[in-house]
Amino acid sequence: MTNTASQPLFETVAFIGMGLIGSSMARRIKRDGLADKITCAVRSEATRDRVLELGIADEAYCDIKQAVGDADLVMVCAPVGANEAIGAQLTGALKKGAIVSDVGSVKQSVIRDIAPHLDEGVHFVPGHPLAGTEHSGPDSGFPELFEERWCILTPIPGENEAAIAKVKALWEACGMYVECMDADHHDRILGITSHLPHLIAYTIVGTATDLEDALRQEVIKFSATGFRDFTRIAASDPTMWRDVFLNNREAVLDVLGRFQEDLMALQRAIRWGEGDKLFELFSRTREIRRGIVDAGQYFANFSAEGEDRKSDEKSKKKPAE
Amino acid sequence: MTNTASQPLFETVAFIGMGLIGSSMARRIKRDGLADKITCAVRSEATRDRVLELGIADEAYCDIKQAVGDADLVMVCAPVGANEAIGAQLTGALKKGAIVSDVGSVKQSVIRDIAPHLDEGVHFVPGHPLAGTEHSGPDSGFPELFEERWCILTPIPGENEAAIAKVKALWEACGMYVECMDADHHDRILGITSHLPHLIAYTIVGTATDLEDALRQEVIKFSATGFRDFTRIAASDPTMWRDVFLNNREAVLDVLGRFQEDLMALQRAIRWGEGDKLFELFSRTREIRRGIVDAGQYFANFSAEGEDRKSDEKSKKKPAE
Repeated sequence: MTNTASQPLFETVAFIGMGLIGSSMARRIKRDGLADKITCAVRSEATRDRVLELGIADEAYCDIKQAVGDADLVMVCAPVGANEAIGAQLTGALKKGAIVSDVGSVKQSVIRDIAPHLDEGVHFVPGHPLAGTEHSGPDSGFPELFEERWCILTPIPGENEAAIAKVKALWEACGMYVECMDADHHDRILGITSHLPHLIAYTIVGTATDLEDALRQEVIKFSATGFRDFTRIAASDPTMWRDVFLNNREAVLDVLGRFQEDLMALQRAIRWGEGDKLFELFSRTREIRRGIVDAGQYFANFSAEGEDRKSDEKSKKKPAE
Repeated sequence: MTNTASQPLFETVAFIGMGLIGSSMARRIKRDGLADKITCAVRSEATRDRVLELGIADEAYCDIKQAVGDADLVMVCAPVGANEAIGAQLTGALKKGAIVSDVGSVKQSVIRDIAPHLDEGVHFVPGHPLAGTEHSGPDSGFPELFEERWCILTPIPGENEAAIAKVKALWEACGMYVECMDADHHDRILGITSHLPHLIAYTIVGTATDLEDALRQEVIKFSATGFRDFTRIAASDPTMWRDVFLNNREAVLDVLGRFQEDLMALQRAIRWGEGDKLFELFSRTREIRRGIVDAGQYFANFSAEGEDRKSDEKSKKKPAE
């Protein structure tokens, strides 16, 4: 799924933020010639120097306005809590006809925080590539990150169709399957599939962290499958996830409430020795796994360790609709 | 770590139960010549026929007494809820000097349910190999399952040292690192590292299962990293896990209570927008991950799909003490 067009999709793409997602996109764009030029704005001089050293942007600045002036696509790749401040920098800074997009894990708040700042004639196509690892920073990116995964776009009704199509084409060129939906629907689904699981993983690893020292050492030493998986999830970027929970509060609290009720019911079943209730639930949950395996949602298989990454060669089929 | 002794470790090993763990051990014993003969007792005629068809036992019975009469090692590999009934079958059925061991995920209940049934002169060495996948049944086993993982033995104080050493040697020949500890200590550690994570995973997947149909379909379609990992854990054998929770009730309820408190605190922080509290926890949890990565606890990396399995070639070093 490489870009085979004779023309690049964009002249200049400007990234705001060069972490895991931004630097992976930049690497993919460079590798496949999807844009003529990449610029970026980052927060620190150290990151700016590192980005240039890695060669993943042609120009790098610590100032947003400098980075975005020539861009026909501005890709906001920062924690969603930074959007309000970023949006304010975009006012009056963009070419007419420029497209602003983003990669945030929450979509209603992105629209709330960025859209009001954009000038007439600038298009806005919020998006969320469902891809990632627990690593962060410009060194953690790699061009295959998005391969065979879903990207959800949540354009505001009435947005310019050509702009939506261009953003869609870019993600497809990065290897993704793209689907459009309303921002609130996105936030509800991701609250269940991603935000709640991360919250739970952070909590359980936190509970273990608070154990007395000797016991904690043994928990680390003998960490079994379940816990080990949770620690990987709970090693994700703290700033990004703080912002996700603060900005998808309603959806997260709703599903968290359901989860708490269900957990209480299980706790009671254990206390009273109600094996039939446990067995019934443990059998039902196998079904949803089968659904996921059938839907072919196993594209990338990232190793838990360091920088090692593997792509799963087994499931290159398109996921079920 | 193949057995290089000129003599097999045992003449006859009898398995009670031939699921993932039993059939993996049997395959390893066969492959490396760790015993002269393997017998087994399984519950159904279909499983008995399948075990013989797979060639992983020399003799297979639906009757425990028939399977164990000649054994110098009896390995109980059944869900821990079956131990009381299995123990009763062992009375008067074993050779003098025979060793009984097991692979159950809870150790106090195993001692409670099996030890009283064993005749004078029969040795008892309860054990728990910390290895597994979400698959079950005799077809799911493979000889590399135990490679580079921990096995915990919980012999009763005063047990015959030679018997403990023989069981230890078998697990080491299967590729494991072996450590001894008290059964109650084992149950507390595993309650944290394995039982609670499984309970949480079952709960969250159950919460998703109860969603209205259209939303559930989208949750399956767009299942992201966190949720996908949970569904794999929640696809584990329902009988085995029901028995674990019923038999490690106190330790599970204790750590579950701590978890609930911690989750309530996070829920409150989200509701009141206390970003600093979220950030503080999310940063602390990265530390424990580092501890686990440093401890080298990443030996096997089982793919999430079907029968596909990969071993992680990266971390063959011995885990930190």
